[in-house]
Amino acid sequence: MASKHLINSPSTLVIESLEGLCLLNPHLRLDKDARVLFRPLSSNSSQKVALICGGGSGHEPAHAAFVGKGLLTAAVSGSVFASPSGKQVRRAVELVHPQTTSSGSTQEGAGTLIIVKNYTGDVLNFGLAKEALGSYPAYANSVRFLTIADDVAVPRSRITLVGRRGLAGTVLMYKITGELAARGASLDEVEKVGQYVAENLASIGVATGHSHVPGTERGQDVLGEDEIEVGMGIHNEPGVLRLHGSSGLPPSLSEIMPRLVNLLTVSQEEDPERGWVSFSPSADVVLMVNNLGGLSPLELSAVSVEAAKVISDKGLKIKRVLCGTYMTSLNMPGFSLTLLKLPSAGQEPSQDLLLSLLDSPAEASGWGWVSGREPVPLSDQMVSSTSSPITSVSTSNTTSSNDEDARQVVEGIRRACNALIHVEPELTRMDTVAGDGDCGLTLKAGAEGVLSLIQSNKINGHDLPTTFIAIAGVAEDKMGGTSGGLYSIFFSALAQGLRTSSTTEVNWPSALNHALTKLYTYTRARPPSRTLVDPLDAFVKGLSTDKVDFFKSCEKAQEAALATRGMQAKAGRAVYGGGEEGEEEMDPGAWGVAILLKAIIGERS
Amino acid sequence: MASKHLINSPSTLVIESLEGLCLLNPHLRLDKDARVLFRPLSSNSSQKVALICGGGSGHEPAHAAFVGKGLLTAAVSGSVFASPSGKQVRRAVELVHPQTTSSGSTQEGAGTLIIVKNYTGDVLNFGLAKEALGSYPAYANSVRFLTIADDVAVPRSRITLVGRRGLAGTVLMYKITGELAARGASLDEVEKVGQYVAENLASIGVATGHSHVPGTERGQDVLGEDEIEVGMGIHNEPGVLRLHGSSGLPPSLSEIMPRLVNLLTVSQEEDPERGWVSFSPSADVVLMVNNLGGLSPLELSAVSVEAAKVISDKGLKIKRVLCGTYMTSLNMPGFSLTLLKLPSAGQEPSQDLLLSLLDSPAEASGWGWVSGREPVPLSDQMVSSTSSPITSVSTSNTTSSNDEDARQVVEGIRRACNALIHVEPELTRMDTVAGDGDCGLTLKAGAEGVLSLIQSNKINGHDLPTTFIAIAGVAEDKMGGTSGGLYSIFFSALAQGLRTSSTTEVNWPSALNHALTKLYTYTRARPPSRTLVDPLDAFVKGLSTDKVDFFKSCEKAQEAALATRGMQAKAGRAVYGGGEEGEEEMDPGAWGVAILLKAIIGERS
Repeated sequence: MASKHLINSPSTLVIESLEGLCLLNPHLRLDKDARVLFRPLSSNSSQKVALICGGGSGHEPAHAAFVGKGLLTAAVSGSVFASPSGKQVRRAVELVHPQTTSSGSTQEGAGTLIIVKNYTGDVLNFGLAKEALGSYPAYANSVRFLTIADDVAVPRSRITLVGRRGLAGTVLMYKITGELAARGASLDEVEKVGQYVAENLASIGVATGHSHVPGTERGQDVLGEDEIEVGMGIHNEPGVLRLHGSSGLPPSLSEIMPRLVNLLTVSQEEDPERGWVSFSPSADVVLMVNNLGGLSPLELSAVSVEAAKVISDKGLKIKRVLCGTYMTSLNMPGFSLTLLKLPSAGQEPSQDLLLSLLDSPAEASGWGWVSGREPVPLSDQMVSSTSSPITSVSTSNTTSSNDEDARQVVEGIRRACNALIHVEPELTRMDTVAGDGDCGLTLKAGAEGVLSLIQSNKINGHDLPTTFIAIAGVAEDKMGGTSGGLYSIFFSALAQGLRTSSTTEVNWPSALNHALTKLYTYTRARPPSRTLVDPLDAFVKGLSTDKVDFFKSCEKAQEAALATRGMQAKAGRAVYGGGEEGEEEMDPGAWGVAILLKAIIGERS
Repeated sequence: MASKHLINSPSTLVIESLEGLCLLNPHLRLDKDARVLFRPLSSNSSQKVALICGGGSGHEPAHAAFVGKGLLTAAVSGSVFASPSGKQVRRAVELVHPQTTSSGSTQEGAGTLIIVKNYTGDVLNFGLAKEALGSYPAYANSVRFLTIADDVAVPRSRITLVGRRGLAGTVLMYKITGELAARGASLDEVEKVGQYVAENLASIGVATGHSHVPGTERGQDVLGEDEIEVGMGIHNEPGVLRLHGSSGLPPSLSEIMPRLVNLLTVSQEEDPERGWVSFSPSADVVLMVNNLGGLSPLELSAVSVEAAKVISDKGLKIKRVLCGTYMTSLNMPGFSLTLLKLPSAGQEPSQDLLLSLLDSPAEASGWGWVSGREPVPLSDQMVSSTSSPITSVSTSNTTSSNDEDARQVVEGIRRACNALIHVEPELTRMDTVAGDGDCGLTLKAGAEGVLSLIQSNKINGHDLPTTFIAIAGVAEDKMGGTSGGLYSIFFSALAQGLRTSSTTEVNWPSALNHALTKLYTYTRARPPSRTLVDPLDAFVKGLSTDKVDFFKSCEKAQEAALATRGMQAKAGRAVYGGGEEGEEEMDPGAWGVAILLKAIIGERS
C-alpha cells in the first residue's frame, strides 16, 4: 500500500482540494466552514430543482468536481471517508434551495433533491438535515431524498438491515437527474426519473490493494502479490472473495471478468443472495468503467474492452460506454463496473430521455467529453494494414543513369557491403570494449540486406533516388536501433536531395549536404562526437568546394574516424558505456563509415 | 512500488487499451498492426492540416485518448515506454495526410504536422518516417515536424547533445494546434503557432515513487518513506534532486512548491543551468497541473492551489488553470506542473487567439470540460457561514399549550433527562461488554444539553414543535454518532407531526407515528433488532389504537427493552462488537429509551 502523500497536512487537505475546484471555475462558491461547494442558480435560470450530494471526501471527482450546470448544484464534503454532519448538509440545502414565494413556501414544482450513497452515517446525517428542515414551511414538502445502493457484492443475508452500499453508479444518477433539472423539470419529475435510475443500477469493485488515508498509520498490504479482492468497497471495506492468479501474478482480466459480470447480472432465482436488478436476456444497458483512483489509464481502457466483451456475450446490448475516473477510493489500484439497465420500449421514463440526459454536455471539471454514441462492433472500426496509400515512386524529376553508370553504382554499393561484412569481427571487438557489442553485427545485417536486394534486382542502380530509398528501407528494417535510424534518415534525405537535383548531371555535393543537414535535425551529435557523424561530416563537408574530389574527402573521413581514438564520447552509445579503457579504441560506428566510404570510392591511384 | 496489474497480458495490453478508446467513440478508426488510432477527416471538413503525435504507451490519456475533433488526428503507439517504429509513424501519416490533388501534390496550405516529444527514439523514428515520405511528391513539402522539450529539471550542461525531455506541456500543444487546425488554418499557420507554444513551455515533475511496467520484474521502492524525487521523468528517469521531509513523512507541499516554481521560472542569468523560458516579472501564464497517474484526485486538486499561490506570489498572472490527468507515467504517484508563457500585448500569435484555442471544447475522451475563465481571487468565491437563510420558526399552524400544559411538558422532559443522567453508569457497563462503551455518556451528554436549554428558557414547553426542534438540535450537536442522529431525526419528525396536527387537541399517536415512520426511512432496524428501535416501536405502535393509553405503551416499551437481553444483534453497534457474552446483557440503547419513557410517563398508579 502506498502510504506517501503530497499534501500540506491531513487537516487542511479537504478544504484545499475544494479551493482547487474554485480555481477551475470562477462561477463556483465555497462555504469553507460547512465545506459546501455550490453553483448559485442564476435568477433567470429555468432550473427549478437544486441537486445536492456529498459524503466523505476521498472519492474525487465525486462529489464536488461534479458541481456545475447539468450536474450537481451543491456538494457537501466530510473528512476523508467520513460523513459530513447534518448541519453541513442543512447549510447546503439552505444555500441552493430555490427561493420561496412571498407566502413562505417554494414555487410550484421547485425544490431540492438530496442524493445519498447508502452508508449509515451519510443516510443519517443527510436525513437529519432533511428532517430538521422539514419543520419549516419553506422546506417542508420541497426537500426530497434519494438513496443509491448499487453495490452487488455483499450477499443479501449479510446486509438485511444496512442494505447495499452506494458506489460509482451514483455519478450516473447525478448526470441524468442533473441534466433533467437543468432543463427545468419539476421536483416530482426529477425524483421520478431518479427513482428509476436508483432501482436499476448495479455496480461492483475490484482492486489489487487498499488505499491509505492521509494522517493515519502507515499501511500494510493485506493482499498477496497474486491476489485481488472482488467486491471491494470505496472505503477499503472488504469484498466478497479474493481471487488468486498463477505464476505469482494476479488473475488475468479474462479470468476475473466473467465473475464480475455474473455478480452484476445474475438473477435472484439463480443466486438468492443477489439478483438486485433484473436484467432481461437482451436488455439495453449503459456500462460505466470507473477508476478507483490508482489504476493506470492504460489498464483501465483495456478493462473496458474485456467488460464489454463479456457483457455482450451475455446477450445484453450496450448502448453507451463510459470509461474514466468518476468515484475513487483515494488512489486505490482497482476499478468498478456499473451497469444501468435502460427502460424497455414503452416504459417510463423512456430510454431516449435517459440517454439524451446522459449524453448532454455538462459544465463541471469532473465530467469529460462523451461521444453520446452507441458502440459499434470493434471490427467495424478496424482498418487493414495491407493496403498502403503510398503510390509507387513517381518517375518525374528523377536522375536516371545509363547502363554503364548503373553498373558502376551497383558495384560501388556491393563493394561497400562486402567491406562491412568483412570488418564485422573488428567492429564487434571494438564495440565490446566501449559499447554494447552489436555495432558490427548491425552493420553486417544491413549490408547483407542490401546485397540481397541487389541479388533480386530490386536495387539496380538505374534510378538513384529509388536505389537510396531501398537502402534506407533496409537500414530501418534490418539494422534498427539508433544507428539504423540515422542511416535510414541519411539515405532517405539523400534520395530527396538527388530527386530535387535539376541538372542532368548528378550534383553529389548538393545532395549529400542536403542529407547531412536533414540528419542534423534529428541528432545533436556534431564532430568531434565519437560517433558515425565524425567521418560522415568530414566526407560531406570536404566535398562542398568548387572542385569535387571524392578521394580527398574520403581521406578526411578516414582521419576523422581515426581521431575518435582517445576521444571522450559526447553522444551515442559510448556516453553511457565503457569508460577510459573504451576510449582507447576508435568508435566502431565511425570506423564503419570510413570503411564503407573507402570501399565505394577506393584509394587515389 | 505497486507491481500488480489488472491486465490480460503485457503483450496485448496496448492494443486492448486502444480498442477501449474505440468503444467510447465509433468515429475513431484503428490500424491494429501499426497501432495507429485516428479520426478520418470527413470530406466536407474544412480542416486542412492533420495533427499526429505518439510515442511509447503508458502515458495515457496521451496520446491516443486525445484523438478527436479539435485535438489530434492520429496517434501512434509504441509498447509501454518504447518508441513506435518509423514504419508505424509512416503508416499514421499515410492514413491521415490530406488528399493529394490530381497532380500528385497536396492542396495549398494542407499537410501533416507531426508533434514529437524530445526523446532519442521518438525523434529518430518519427524523423525516419518524415524523411522516408519526403521522397514522395505527395508528402515532400507538406509533412512538418515539431519537437516538444518542456522539461526544466535536468541541468543544461548535462544535456548538451540530447536536449530537454518532452513532458505534459505536449498536451497544451495538441489542444492549441489541434483547435487551430480544426478551424481550417494552413500548415504554415499551425506550425507557426505550434512553434510559439514549443518555445514557451516549461514543465517539471515530482513523485513519491516509481511506476512499474507490466511484464517486468517486480519493482523495489528506490525512495525512502520520507523522500520525494524532483524532476522525475515520465519513464522513471531520475530527477535532479531528492527532498526529505520530517517526522518520517515526505516534505509538505508548501516546502516543495517554491522549489518547483523556481525551477520553472528562474532566469538563465540567475541559474546558468536553467532559464529555458524567459518569464518577465508579470507575464501572463497558463498553469497545467497534471496527475502522473497514481496521485489521488483529492491531493491533485490541493496541489493546484499551492502551485497557483506560489506562482501568483512571483508576480506571474495566471489566466487559466487546468488540473487533471493529461500525461501519465502509468500510475506513478506524483504530479507535474506546466507553465505556458502567453504572448504579451502586440505579440504574434495573439494571447486572445491562444486562449480561445485552449478554451474551445474538443471531442476526445481524454479532454474534460474547462471553464475557459480566468481564476479570480479565492476570497471572491468564499461565502460566509454566519448568515443563515433559515427564517425563524413560522408560528402558523402550530400547537400551543397554555401555561399549565407547558409546565407539565417541561417537567416531563426534565424527569427524562435526570433519569438518563442517573442511569449513565449502568448503561456504560452494559455497553462496555457489548459495544464501544460510549452509550451511557452519549445519552448523558444529550440530557445535560437539554437541561441547559430549559435552564436558559430556550425550552419552555409553550410551543411543542419548537420544543422538539430544540431537542433535535441538542441530539445532533451534543450526542452525535448514530444514536444522536436517530434521536435527532425522531424529534425533528415529531415536531413536523405536531405541526401538521390540525386539531387544537394534540394528536400524540399520529405525531409519534409520523416520527417513527420517518425514522424508518433512515434505518432498516426493525424489532426485534437489539437496538433503541425495539422499545420505541413498541411504545409508538402501542398507542395507535382508539384509546390512547400511555401507561400501557410504556410498559410494552419496557418489555421490548428487557427482551433485548439474549438477543442476537441485527443492526447497530452490536453487530460488529462483543459476541455471545455481550448478548447476555440488554442493549443499553434500548434500555435508555425505556428509562426515558418511564421517567416522562411514570408508572400506572
